Amino acid sequence: MAKAEAPVFNRVALIGLGLIASSMAHAMRWKGLAGEITGHARSAETRATATEIGLVDRVFETAAEAVKGADLVVLCVPVGAMGAIAAEIAPHLAAGAIITDVGSVKQAVIAEVAPHLPDTVLFIPGHPLAGTEHSGPRSGFATLFVNRWWILCPVEGTPPEATAKLRALCEGMGANVDEMDAPHHDVVLAVTSHTPHLIAYTMVGVADHVRRVSQSEIIKYSASGFRDFTRIAASDPVMWRDVFLTNKEATLDILGRFTEELFVLQRAIRMGDGAYLQEYFTRTRAIRRSIIEAGQDTAAPNFGRGVSEPDA
Amino acid sequence: MAKAEAPVFNRVALIGLGLIASSMAHAMRWKGLAGEITGHARSAETRATATEIGLVDRVFETAAEAVKGADLVVLCVPVGAMGAIAAEIAPHLAAGAIITDVGSVKQAVIAEVAPHLPDTVLFIPGHPLAGTEHSGPRSGFATLFVNRWWILCPVEGTPPEATAKLRALCEGMGANVDEMDAPHHDVVLAVTSHTPHLIAYTMVGVADHVRRVSQSEIIKYSASGFRDFTRIAASDPVMWRDVFLTNKEATLDILGRFTEELFVLQRAIRMGDGAYLQEYFTRTRAIRRSIIEAGQDTAAPNFGRGVSEPDA
Repeated sequence: MAKAEAPVFNRVALIGLGLIASSMAHAMRWKGLAGEITGHARSAETRATATEIGLVDRVFETAAEAVKGADLVVLCVPVGAMGAIAAEIAPHLAAGAIITDVGSVKQAVIAEVAPHLPDTVLFIPGHPLAGTEHSGPRSGFATLFVNRWWILCPVEGTPPEATAKLRALCEGMGANVDEMDAPHHDVVLAVTSHTPHLIAYTMVGVADHVRRVSQSEIIKYSASGFRDFTRIAASDPVMWRDVFLTNKEATLDILGRFTEELFVLQRAIRMGDGAYLQEYFTRTRAIRRSIIEAGQDTAAPNFGRGVSEPDA
Repeated sequence: MAKAEAPVFNRVALIGLGLIASSMAHAMRWKGLAGEITGHARSAETRATATEIGLVDRVFETAAEAVKGADLVVLCVPVGAMGAIAAEIAPHLAAGAIITDVGSVKQAVIAEVAPHLPDTVLFIPGHPLAGTEHSGPRSGFATLFVNRWWILCPVEGTPPEATAKLRALCEGMGANVDEMDAPHHDVVLAVTSHTPHLIAYTMVGVADHVRRVSQSEIIKYSASGFRDFTRIAASDPVMWRDVFLTNKEATLDILGRFTEELFVLQRAIRMGDGAYLQEYFTRTRAIRRSIIEAGQDTAAPNFGRGVSEPDA
């Protein structure tokens, strides 16, 4: 990625200054993608931190001030807070501005945000498939989006040149951009992200309840499988609360299929049906192989977590 | 770890030459822990590979020949095959030999193996908590056990010096050794490993069934959570079939708690109970923090999977 010739946007306003927004700030500066970056966070502490570390060029106490004169506004607040923020900034948006968001659910965000926005601006919902288990204004880093997917869900009638401009920004930060409609996004994410997260949260909760096994034993022996569940069960609780409340239908649908399937496997264990289990596990192994072949993971032992070399 | 002064065992026989046995062969050679290493595998192809790559000093066609004169015999076959192997080698074991195994389940292995063994040998069941998604004689590497746990389950009456000798071998390969009784081992592993694996297999199976989302989309967007499930759902199908068939009681118990818990969360989603979800996710996050503090995982973004540095 070469440094862009000119900024893609003149002024980018980041509303909410958590992991995604702070990573965008670092990435846009790294690649020279924005002329100026303004920011707002609801919490005074977050604003103070952002000012202290120089995260953006100017930090504002209100979202309304932050968006003034911006040609791109990025809503980086939890999905449940999007509607109120949209109502607050609507009267202050510059004509022709592009508004996007980074929420993990798209139909609910569109339903909450779109009705508030004036006809003079363009709303192009988006979702970067990137994250870590950290949150807050200090958690961002410039390479978070490199080789990650960024899904855009432009509504019908969005001028292609507006979508192209937003795409250029995402690609400039290193992401691969895909476009799809919002309902499809929500079911794809229910399968690949939302349901796996809920299951991981559940498994971690169960481990916390089993009295015959001590907490310290669970932690000690977590590398045998449990650990990989805890990572995805460590993401921001408010963000995930909102994901499940707003992508309810698709998540409940996939969860229903999951429990059905789990009961069939549970029955195979109870009945001692080894052939069924072996056939099932062989099939899932093939799916894993496809993911590695697609370059979406490494087959290195232990996820490539520091394994020491022979020293003697 | 310095090279051992003298080998811990004079002749180690590895029965079964998959990931664990081949890693043990590499690790024992690396640290000079065994005077000689013999090996046997049921499949002629595996034996040919082991000979070709010089995995052990001598490869035998039968387990009976491989164990002759060995002062340590390690059973590295799937849990379901342990009983037959024990019956086969029993008449050929040297007096005073230590027999151990590396099975993921301990009560079932003891029930299958112990009755066949003569009183002249010592059986000390074991379980190294280490693995990758690969299997077979080429998959081993010398550092597999470094900083991993190796659980020993000596039965009552085992001479402490025999356990100490086996412990020295495991520690020599870099592992941390813990001792516990077999029933406790089986419930600890049901929580930290067996149930998480079954759930991961189930989630991967579900993703394979959802017709509205294509296989290529699932693979493409797998980094958003699903990917971490596929890794643990890619382990050896026969090994896992046997784990569930032989640790049935503990796994079904933990699975029952899991589905109960999942239904409560599912209900919270359906009822829109955001407070419950947020409180639950906050608690699981705290458990994750403990695992990182205990040094059992890295908090690095993306598990430390190759993240490029800013280049401009």
